[in-house]
Amino acid sequence: MREVQQERAIATRQHIIESAAAVFDAAGFAGASLGRIIEQAGTTRGALHFHFPAKEALANAVLNEHNSRMSAVVEEVIRSDGSALEKIVVISKTTARMIDKDVLVRAGTRLLMELTYTGDLPVAYRMWIDACENMVSKAIEDGDIVPTISPETVAYLVISSLAGIQMVSSVLSGRSDLDQRVDEMWEVLLLGLVPADRRWKVAGLLSSVPRT
Amino acid sequence: MREVQQERAIATRQHIIESAAAVFDAAGFAGASLGRIIEQAGTTRGALHFHFPAKEALANAVLNEHNSRMSAVVEEVIRSDGSALEKIVVISKTTARMIDKDVLVRAGTRLLMELTYTGDLPVAYRMWIDACENMVSKAIEDGDIVPTISPETVAYLVISSLAGIQMVSSVLSGRSDLDQRVDEMWEVLLLGLVPADRRWKVAGLLSSVPRT
Repeated sequence: MREVQQERAIATRQHIIESAAAVFDAAGFAGASLGRIIEQAGTTRGALHFHFPAKEALANAVLNEHNSRMSAVVEEVIRSDGSALEKIVVISKTTARMIDKDVLVRAGTRLLMELTYTGDLPVAYRMWIDACENMVSKAIEDGDIVPTISPETVAYLVISSLAGIQMVSSVLSGRSDLDQRVDEMWEVLLLGLVPADRRWKVAGLLSSVPRT
Repeated sequence: MREVQQERAIATRQHIIESAAAVFDAAGFAGASLGRIIEQAGTTRGALHFHFPAKEALANAVLNEHNSRMSAVVEEVIRSDGSALEKIVVISKTTARMIDKDVLVRAGTRLLMELTYTGDLPVAYRMWIDACENMVSKAIEDGDIVPTISPETVAYLVISSLAGIQMVSSVLSGRSDLDQRVDEMWEVLLLGLVPADRRWKVAGLLSSVPRT
């Protein structure tokens, strides 16, 4: 009996997180009212407060779930076959697609950008940069990236550019060209980062770049 | 007499815009209350309403002033000596420094990012991308950028990356490494975009990149 109750509580909590994500995605952190989240979830104020004492707790739950979903995809790609450089490109393209398709990831991305200014989130971008830096180091060892630029420099640029492209593409095209813009980013970056005789290894991953 | 009154009204309006910028920079659009802006400006609710009927009008005034200041710098660089490629690099570095030094430009940058989601600002990024595209086309004509990538692709990436770097640098270092990160962006981009025999022309502009 208590197990059933626990399961129900977990399902309710998850349902509230998904509902909050839909509201955060549409209205942002400041614009999201608890009333609207309660309405979206079809729950009561009491049930909401039982799981989340305040809007901040809801935003944190959305950001945690966003982080879990992104990390799951990253780890799946890392476990797959392929070179480190190919994996970096695939991860950037796959996560861009998740922002477009998954309302929770989209809400997390919006919250991450908005809460940037509260100073509460110093670790979020740093974590992605560190993960990318490790893979760039591996790609340099493989000879797929030139060794003359520091892995941290490359990783910082890749993560920042992806964040910026996501933002600009969302304003200018409602993200309809996000895939294309990520491809184009790689088209330019790989020209400088990949030794000419290795470029064929990644060209096939970019739909817009001819295999030469 | 009426002229003096007009001058005074213009000065008051400008002072209110500067005060609003300080509040928008600190609190964001949603967090900025008219009461706090009135307090910051040391003015009355009546005077504020005479010039700006609502917070949206204040935000628009800050964005217009942000745009004027950025455009003034861009036009000054364009009129100066130097190649189109050098000018693109100088503009990106100068505007990054303005974000750090000028509270109005900083407020405009924050509003631009926050209002991204309202869908009211489709033209802002587009305008910067178009201006950059023109200069990239000129740099391709000069032989300073390889002709194999479309100028629009390069311009979109440069503007998006600058937006992303500004955002990530503001979270991770309070913008203390913004100059360095913009240099590093160019270090990587120019590796791919500039023919090897032209690279000396821009290397001197990047403090972190040795002249080779």
